[in-house]
Amino acid sequence: MNLKQKNLCAMTPPMGWNSWDCYASSVNEEQLLGNARYMQEHLLRYGWEYVTCDIQWSDPRAGEDRSITYIPFTELNLDAWGRQIPAENRFPSSALGRGFGPIAQRIHEMGLKFGIHIMRGIPRQAVHGRMPVLGTNTTADRIADPFSISKWNGDMYGVNPDSEGAQAWYDSIFRQYADWGVDLVKVDDICNTNMYPQNPYSAQREVEMIRRAIDACGRPMVLSLSPGPAVIEKAWHLKENANMWRITDDFWDRWDLLLAMFERCEVWQSHVGPGCWPDCDMLPLGRIGMGFGEGRNTRFTRDEQKTMMTLWLIFRSPLILGCELRECDEYTLSLITNPDALRLNRHSHGGRQVRRSDAEAVWESLDENGDGYLALFNLSEEVREVSVDLSDTGLKPGRMKELWTGEEMEESNTVRRCLRPHEAALIRIRA
Amino acid sequence: MNLKQKNLCAMTPPMGWNSWDCYASSVNEEQLLGNARYMQEHLLRYGWEYVTCDIQWSDPRAGEDRSITYIPFTELNLDAWGRQIPAENRFPSSALGRGFGPIAQRIHEMGLKFGIHIMRGIPRQAVHGRMPVLGTNTTADRIADPFSISKWNGDMYGVNPDSEGAQAWYDSIFRQYADWGVDLVKVDDICNTNMYPQNPYSAQREVEMIRRAIDACGRPMVLSLSPGPAVIEKAWHLKENANMWRITDDFWDRWDLLLAMFERCEVWQSHVGPGCWPDCDMLPLGRIGMGFGEGRNTRFTRDEQKTMMTLWLIFRSPLILGCELRECDEYTLSLITNPDALRLNRHSHGGRQVRRSDAEAVWESLDENGDGYLALFNLSEEVREVSVDLSDTGLKPGRMKELWTGEEMEESNTVRRCLRPHEAALIRIRA
Amino acid sequence: MNLKQKNLCAMTPPMGWNSWDCYASSVNEEQLLGNARYMQEHLLRYGWEYVTCDIQWSDPRAGEDRSITYIPFTELNLDAWGRQIPAENRFPSSALGRGFGPIAQRIHEMGLKFGIHIMRGIPRQAVHGRMPVLGTNTTADRIADPFSISKWNGDMYGVNPDSEGAQAWYDSIFRQYADWGVDLVKVDDICNTNMYPQNPYSAQREVEMIRRAIDACGRPMVLSLSPGPAVIEKAWHLKENANMWRITDDFWDRWDLLLAMFERCEVWQSHVGPGCWPDCDMLPLGRIGMGFGEGRNTRFTRDEQKTMMTLWLIFRSPLILGCELRECDEYTLSLITNPDALRLNRHSHGGRQVRRSDAEAVWESLDENGDGYLALFNLSEEVREVSVDLSDTGLKPGRMKELWTGEEMEESNTVRRCLRPHEAALIRIRA
Amino acid sequence: MNLKQKNLCAMTPPMGWNSWDCYASSVNEEQLLGNARYMQEHLLRYGWEYVTCDIQWSDPRAGEDRSITYIPFTELNLDAWGRQIPAENRFPSSALGRGFGPIAQRIHEMGLKFGIHIMRGIPRQAVHGRMPVLGTNTTADRIADPFSISKWNGDMYGVNPDSEGAQAWYDSIFRQYADWGVDLVKVDDICNTNMYPQNPYSAQREVEMIRRAIDACGRPMVLSLSPGPAVIEKAWHLKENANMWRITDDFWDRWDLLLAMFERCEVWQSHVGPGCWPDCDMLPLGRIGMGFGEGRNTRFTRDEQKTMMTLWLIFRSPLILGCELRECDEYTLSLITNPDALRLNRHSHGGRQVRRSDAEAVWESLDENGDGYLALFNLSEEVREVSVDLSDTGLKPGRMKELWTGEEMEESNTVRRCLRPHEAALIRIRA
Repeated sequence: MNLKQKNLCAMTPPMGWNSWDCYASSVNEEQLLGNARYMQEHLLRYGWEYVTCDIQWSDPRAGEDRSITYIPFTELNLDAWGRQIPAENRFPSSALGRGFGPIAQRIHEMGLKFGIHIMRGIPRQAVHGRMPVLGTNTTADRIADPFSISKWNGDMYGVNPDSEGAQAWYDSIFRQYADWGVDLVKVDDICNTNMYPQNPYSAQREVEMIRRAIDACGRPMVLSLSPGPAVIEKAWHLKENANMWRITDDFWDRWDLLLAMFERCEVWQSHVGPGCWPDCDMLPLGRIGMGFGEGRNTRFTRDEQKTMMTLWLIFRSPLILGCELRECDEYTLSLITNPDALRLNRHSHGGRQVRRSDAEAVWESLDENGDGYLALFNLSEEVREVSVDLSDTGLKPGRMKELWTGEEMEESNTVRRCLRPHEAALIRIRA
Repeated sequence: MNLKQKNLCAMTPPMGWNSWDCYASSVNEEQLLGNARYMQEHLLRYGWEYVTCDIQWSDPRAGEDRSITYIPFTELNLDAWGRQIPAENRFPSSALGRGFGPIAQRIHEMGLKFGIHIMRGIPRQAVHGRMPVLGTNTTADRIADPFSISKWNGDMYGVNPDSEGAQAWYDSIFRQYADWGVDLVKVDDICNTNMYPQNPYSAQREVEMIRRAIDACGRPMVLSLSPGPAVIEKAWHLKENANMWRITDDFWDRWDLLLAMFERCEVWQSHVGPGCWPDCDMLPLGRIGMGFGEGRNTRFTRDEQKTMMTLWLIFRSPLILGCELRECDEYTLSLITNPDALRLNRHSHGGRQVRRSDAEAVWESLDENGDGYLALFNLSEEVREVSVDLSDTGLKPGRMKELWTGEEMEESNTVRRCLRPHEAALIRIRA
Repeated sequence: MNLKQKNLCAMTPPMGWNSWDCYASSVNEEQLLGNARYMQEHLLRYGWEYVTCDIQWSDPRAGEDRSITYIPFTELNLDAWGRQIPAENRFPSSALGRGFGPIAQRIHEMGLKFGIHIMRGIPRQAVHGRMPVLGTNTTADRIADPFSISKWNGDMYGVNPDSEGAQAWYDSIFRQYADWGVDLVKVDDICNTNMYPQNPYSAQREVEMIRRAIDACGRPMVLSLSPGPAVIEKAWHLKENANMWRITDDFWDRWDLLLAMFERCEVWQSHVGPGCWPDCDMLPLGRIGMGFGEGRNTRFTRDEQKTMMTLWLIFRSPLILGCELRECDEYTLSLITNPDALRLNRHSHGGRQVRRSDAEAVWESLDENGDGYLALFNLSEEVREVSVDLSDTGLKPGRMKELWTGEEMEESNTVRRCLRPHEAALIRIRA
Repeated sequence: MNLKQKNLCAMTPPMGWNSWDCYASSVNEEQLLGNARYMQEHLLRYGWEYVTCDIQWSDPRAGEDRSITYIPFTELNLDAWGRQIPAENRFPSSALGRGFGPIAQRIHEMGLKFGIHIMRGIPRQAVHGRMPVLGTNTTADRIADPFSISKWNGDMYGVNPDSEGAQAWYDSIFRQYADWGVDLVKVDDICNTNMYPQNPYSAQREVEMIRRAIDACGRPMVLSLSPGPAVIEKAWHLKENANMWRITDDFWDRWDLLLAMFERCEVWQSHVGPGCWPDCDMLPLGRIGMGFGEGRNTRFTRDEQKTMMTLWLIFRSPLILGCELRECDEYTLSLITNPDALRLNRHSHGGRQVRRSDAEAVWESLDENGDGYLALFNLSEEVREVSVDLSDTGLKPGRMKELWTGEEMEESNTVRRCLRPHEAALIRIRA
């Protein structure tokens, strides 16, 4: 099959770091570059490469008060065409109109890639200021839809896809991102098309405008859509336009959310492949929450962390770390630098839920080298033996190894493992 | 029972005229005063008295293009405190800061009353312009809720009831209306609290702020809430705060909408009384639609018009004419100037649906003088005899008269009437 | 106003006992009569008078296994016309075709009244056995609706109101109940008409058939409908046909359910009056749960019990005890034998919620003797002073007494009371 | 990929005839065999091969009254173990316990395959008669779920998958079908799992029991699930267990339903492949409706018929004729015996919607021989040129032919076709 051009920049699930879980709307240049440096030194060799600056980078006051994530009617830093540019007090290298260019350059020099977050649409500030749209004779108020707003962030109006100048707007911002050297754009308020009952097609059409803007901007960029849950009826549309899309609303370190992810992965399991990655959201491991005024270590137990990693790996979710990397503890590192386990995420195919009940789940997958993988999950509150007959799977018996412990297991037609509550095992079966 | 103060200004269902059905967002001073003059001369003696200027009177461009009811991001005429004032090109007497004062005065001089329409909230234009709120140290952007918008008109943001200055905003506009001499305010985008799933209480709390603002403004005003359908679970709240509230979305001259009104009246029948009037919306009789670029005579047949009037009368809905009064034909006049029929609306109580099926409906009511009323409706597509045993009602036999035809009917325990499809009969039974 | 005949048997809210909360589907003759005897001796003088046998009295095996409330496809005790008769092993006096007659007689001899529970419809057993319907030439299978079933009890089919013999069926069972001497019938699976989305009118029409059957049976009977929540849009229909109707699904001793009742009472507050009693469900005080295999004392704290009683009293809910009366402790007795408090339930009118927030609620009501009542509720988790200005109510200052403690309070325009979390105060203000 | 065993019996979309559209619940042996004979003589050479007897074949009275499709509480023909057997008055060859064996044999002798319809579950008649379940010590009432009923047919109860004997029940009926020689089973009341909000997993688990019963019955059978719309979230489950599943509720000859199918196909387009066929339902061509007492020719215009066929073909829906074959007219025959068009249904892959709007739709597909296919649809009410640039598809230019008219078209990078309202074109592009 001839792969679409858009898939080439994400042939395996993107791996990286995003500023949201630890710094919320307040992230700054030092934090971005500090985490990038850590990634270069400790994680790049395992495949981790994206460093993404999340929401609100054009707001000089964001993070001023940690109890307020988004300041109502705040004044964003805009250029003459209504486009957001980084707040200079937070990103000093952006001064003199250089935008994110200098930061992107330094990240590229480390061998890494640079991502940014945007809200779909055009700033309300540009609209009520009737600012010009670059490359057109129109103004922001003539392409904005006064009824298309986000439910949680008050900065933007959606763009009316039927208005003249709508595509030009998106072209103007993505050309800017290309100039800066951006490699990944996480577009927010756009993925879960059920959020817009009044006009369910508008978000879909904004996705298409963004796709065209990326294709025309002169630089490959991973397109990541948020927030979820994405709508399974639109799987075909997401696969044609995006590289990753959130299948969940914001994921945090709570067992009920992790448990719910098993159903989400079940639903999306047949839509995973090169360039098309249903996204389970950031991994809330390690030290997070500082930007919300409540820095803490992940609330997940070690067993739950292993369960999360195992599911993300075998489902082939993108892997995006949410923690302050420079404060990574040994256990977290052991989960994110296990080459055997990471290989599953990058080189397997045919990931499939074998079965699931309230008490347990079993997944299987195949490595491109012919090895098989089994993931066993104890979802219950009791110690429990989880077992699976290989005849219920597409796998054949062979030498087995549990990849988190390194323990070799005896070859058998029935794979069993005694698991603690909320624990998982990840088993490779050699061909 | 000691009636609440707020009820005193609407002891019977308000009767009048509103500019929407004929002039949409484009009404002007000449049209307002011309209809008032007609009302004074031909209708006042029957009880018709309110003349209400509907939406968009502060927008100089409204009506410019008849195919666009609301111009996105139009520039409203505001005073220094962000309050809307009439567009001078459309309401010349409002010049020099006199607002609606001169028009109100002329209408009062005719012995009539003056009403205006407003959208709940504060203009987006005032918010993004960070305009001051009269009598406070705060600005519009600090009392507006960036997520509270109307679904159909882009002019306003809702007011955050928890913000300092919120009540002051509503006080400032109602004091202005009192100064102008306004007798009725139709507040829009506020009645159907189910329209705001994100924060169902916000509209309810805006109603309370408006109630307080009216109570404090120094002038009695009828408070009319739109659009419907009002939420029956909130009947108690509407009765405590408003004088009339729409129990339907916009009503037009279509049989399916009229048919649906029977169910709405059924649901609301026990909530009708002095100062508290569930509102079936304007009567689309006569010549309407000019403001939408499609002037036409009502699409209702004569029988349907009679059915509509009969239901509004016996349910005791407010009676608000929607047509260009100066083009009233004879048949329309016969429906709105029948003193016997109008008496039912003003002086009956205990209106109650006796029964309803897909094919017919029967209502009963009692006059304060002891007379009874029966309304018989043929809802089917066939000629049909509709009959009712008085034993199924609270009424006693007596001399009977059909009030639309004036026909005397023989006294009987069973009242029957042969009705054309969609026709109604309205029968008075003398005590 | 001439009160409808149907209202006369319930001019004040019914007070009594029901077997469900303590004995579930397993209640027997000894328990019924034992509780009746207790009521006669200790509670009758305070107004408690109904003794009601709840569900499943025709099933000989009900209660056999306390973990199963309803046995699927159990064999009911039916007479030759498919009518349920009491299981003789559980109600020995019913032998020889005497049904509930002997029990009713003994209860009447105590000066009390007797109630029974039924599921709407006709036994599936009668239908599949094609049993005759008394007084007709038809059989059960020809009047049953194969698609009208309860969601939780598998015994019955709904009756198709359009079938010949449908009314005869209901007439046949209510004549039997009249013969037995039944004073109250609690009809189940019929009140919440939203439970039947396929045919929302069927339950409504079964109510009407039951109303006609009672009117024709020759004995006044209180008609009580379950389960809720009743649908507020149908308030008019319930008032025309029933005497009490559940405004809540099953109520148990959990704070979240009690908290939710404040909203339910708010919604229904204007529909309370002689013969028409929105019903907050049984009071889970004292010792309950034995029939579910988990006998226990109520989980409500004393303050929560007081809150519950106060709300039921001022709202004028029917008062139906759910506990094993013979094990009543002193505190429970103090709540159900306070004459001043009970007077409020029987002799007040105009009960109205003055205000409600997440943290507190205030209600007011008027005694027919002119006294006023105030109920103050602390709904929060903190100690809290709840206060109300009498100017926000329809009450006037006067001598005050807190009715649960008997404490006299100083006359004042502002009534305030410091309340523990979940506590209430009930205050009488002398005229 | 190693194909699942279950897929082998349906490697291409099943093609055949089903009795429902023409004979509803009343079909008989003569009609089955008459249509089979016609198929053998005129259609088999084009790939049509299944002859399926639809619902109610065990009911001797079905069809007695053409205005009643399902007789409430009718008496089904059951064997000693509660299993349905054909009504002998309608299927004479089934006498003496031979069931559908003789009919299957005659159909097999014609080179055709035989299908039957069943409702999921176990007859209520068997349950209330407490009949034994073959191969167990249990009875029907102990495996039935009293709350699991169909919304439209009153014959069955669902089977409780947790009960002992549940699997044995399904094994017992499928072994019987294998004995008879059944090749396809259409299981009804099971596909749209959203129809069972009370227990959404029960239908899913009944599917699994049926899958196991087929796998164990000793004969390959196509498993077809009805009615739709199937739930896209369960695509993975349907693909693992069934061969075809309805993606729509009952499809009839109405344009609104055909228009809606475009969205359904859009949603399901990536789930089509060997052994797994999302099913657009029977083709209401030709003469239909006799079993409903209203025999008629299809209401679709010729252009709409062509549109329907084109969509079913390129989407690769199963093709099941609904008409009385013996009354096929020439136009119908031309649609169902076009070898070039049918080849697309059997031998293409990668069918994909290129785009869709209110006015038009375009699909593309690839033949296994390298040819391409384009389908152009005019969904509007106007004559319209529909065009597509091959660069928006995965196809390359080549010699083109419109397959319904046989018209050769000029090679071009842009394919355009002027289409009448509701018309389609089906174009093959040679590699």
